[in-house]
Amino acid sequence: MPFKFEISAQSGAARAATLTTPHGPVETPAFMPVGTLATVKALDPADLVAMGASMILGNAYHLHLRPGDEIVRELGGLHEFMHWDRPILTDSGGFQVFSLAQLRTIDEAGVEFQSHLDGSRRFFTPEVVMQIERNLGADVIMQFDHVIPGQSDESSARDASERSIRWLERCLKEVERLEAIPAPSRAQLPQALFPIVQGGIHSHLRREAAERIREINDWPGFGIGGLSVGEEKDAMYQMIEVVDDALPKTHPRYLMGVGFPEDVIEAVARGVDLFDCVAPTRMGRNGAVFTRDGRLNIKRAEYRLDKRPLDPDCDCAACSRFSRAYVRHLFVSDEMLGLRLLSLHNVHFLLSIARGAQQAIIKGEYDTWSRDWLSRYRTSSPLAV
Amino acid sequence: MPFKFEISAQSGAARAATLTTPHGPVETPAFMPVGTLATVKALDPADLVAMGASMILGNAYHLHLRPGDEIVRELGGLHEFMHWDRPILTDSGGFQVFSLAQLRTIDEAGVEFQSHLDGSRRFFTPEVVMQIERNLGADVIMQFDHVIPGQSDESSARDASERSIRWLERCLKEVERLEAIPAPSRAQLPQALFPIVQGGIHSHLRREAAERIREINDWPGFGIGGLSVGEEKDAMYQMIEVVDDALPKTHPRYLMGVGFPEDVIEAVARGVDLFDCVAPTRMGRNGAVFTRDGRLNIKRAEYRLDKRPLDPDCDCAACSRFSRAYVRHLFVSDEMLGLRLLSLHNVHFLLSIARGAQQAIIKGEYDTWSRDWLSRYRTSSPLAV
Repeated sequence: MPFKFEISAQSGAARAATLTTPHGPVETPAFMPVGTLATVKALDPADLVAMGASMILGNAYHLHLRPGDEIVRELGGLHEFMHWDRPILTDSGGFQVFSLAQLRTIDEAGVEFQSHLDGSRRFFTPEVVMQIERNLGADVIMQFDHVIPGQSDESSARDASERSIRWLERCLKEVERLEAIPAPSRAQLPQALFPIVQGGIHSHLRREAAERIREINDWPGFGIGGLSVGEEKDAMYQMIEVVDDALPKTHPRYLMGVGFPEDVIEAVARGVDLFDCVAPTRMGRNGAVFTRDGRLNIKRAEYRLDKRPLDPDCDCAACSRFSRAYVRHLFVSDEMLGLRLLSLHNVHFLLSIARGAQQAIIKGEYDTWSRDWLSRYRTSSPLAV
Repeated sequence: MPFKFEISAQSGAARAATLTTPHGPVETPAFMPVGTLATVKALDPADLVAMGASMILGNAYHLHLRPGDEIVRELGGLHEFMHWDRPILTDSGGFQVFSLAQLRTIDEAGVEFQSHLDGSRRFFTPEVVMQIERNLGADVIMQFDHVIPGQSDESSARDASERSIRWLERCLKEVERLEAIPAPSRAQLPQALFPIVQGGIHSHLRREAAERIREINDWPGFGIGGLSVGEEKDAMYQMIEVVDDALPKTHPRYLMGVGFPEDVIEAVARGVDLFDCVAPTRMGRNGAVFTRDGRLNIKRAEYRLDKRPLDPDCDCAACSRFSRAYVRHLFVSDEMLGLRLLSLHNVHFLLSIARGAQQAIIKGEYDTWSRDWLSRYRTSSPLAV
């Protein structure tokens, strides 16, 4: 069994576990830094290793367009291409096809769209996307799904969810077909296909989706999709609770695209194990800094002479060396090191939350730990970005 | 004596030596990466330490404008500000005042100009610049000089050189005045003031300048300025030979702003010890890669599937991990890691040349080594950028 999920401790619905993959273990709860184009923006793989990141993300849509998934395969697969020998998960591109690409035509076969880069016509089907993800060679691959806006009505949400489930069956079939093809010169490592539970903000659709997905196969893990896409926070937390009940407690759950500090903490309490979010790097590039006391923006003049680190409670490679005044100077002067230091700090911040959560669960204190954490983070947040 | 220069080996006019500063030794010949705004563009100080950089540069003009030299002093000086505890040299801003600033008025007192950033009016005198460089607190500080274009006629070159020498006397007087002021709360480490030999491409002016500068003081080292600013390469090499003869063999010589591989090798043969140049980082940001076989540009389509490192003979943190195909992908996709990797490789390349030169001098083989190096670099250079 190349994939295993072993739960070592529980604290309420929160779990501490180890997800084993062909490229090593992922201790959960885990935050997965996003490396859309085979690089976590502004960071070096060595930074991520130093911070203790285990699994990172790549994106099938983006890598298909640039440099091309066949080129990545030629170059030894994503791990070798980007020099990352720990686990990788690839997103299927479902979200990007529906958010970035232009002139979409969706039907049962798949999605025809124009590349956001050069307008070239492309056709993604469940089969094509499985081929792309196999070329990339990640450890965990996500199904191709039909993504809809967060507040979609019941009828649209139902249609998209049911289509996603039909596409899931095609994904599984294609993965099995690809696995049966004798490996070329190099051995192809096994990949874990995760289905994605959709259903918008409609509890019964989420429950139905989880049930039907479970009937198809004994999946190695589950994605929870279509959240943090415009709906209310409370609706999101409610949907996570519904899915927590509807999925097997024994398997890993990945809440896709969610990764603000408060969301990670609330979702861990509701049984989620894996997270990803571009916020730490994207917001870092705009000067936003996560701290234990809330967010601040380093560009503000008040930090001009501030000798304190970005977050006095942080031991990352930015905070252990540089002052707010220096990082502010780098930002104001458009120096790349500024982007790097904030990305580094923010990603480290999310990784630390996941580690803190894990330790609290092991001690059986997740409830107290998360309440204290959120209370300090929320009440003191003086400088929203 | 906080500053010492001890020559350990010679090979022709080339020398291997150790320049001791209050922040540690600099083994020469040395290439000094340029950290104009208190950061070597696209790199982390840890990268530079890993590459074996010793002395780096800061720039008085740029740091006076952003973040302000008084702010840097408040924050503990340039070393503490940018977290660099090895030696630093600051350039006086003479070159920037004459190349970047607008609406200059030059007279004997100094230069009035408008900031290239916001048009604000500023007045640099030798005294003001010494105050700025003291606030920054570098180990080696350069005099304020009058810089002119490379092909200036004899009369302009003479005027600028003679004015630079009068300004040198004022710089020295101001440094002595500042040193006599009781140190504030924190101790101010001693600084070495280097004069700058000017004189354009006129041998007799260079000789006269060197002679008059030597009469003023027993300087800890000498800058050679006004070269690589548009004149022919042969004229530059000739001027270096003239200055080599005219300066004491016992003292370090710093060839300002010069740092292309072939120039470093030619100048070491003519008795130069210290170099700086923005080319490795600036050209790296445009995709140019220095290799032992000449320059290449990583953006070219031919590297799309190239599994070789940027330079197969290099052991830097880029070449030991990534393929040309991956770095090309990063460049084409505007990913910051691409800029970082090329800057890293190119700076490492120049540092390695300086180290190679040093070892060849110690073995007494500089002549053979430099001939072989240049012959391979020049003849094979297939892909000029």
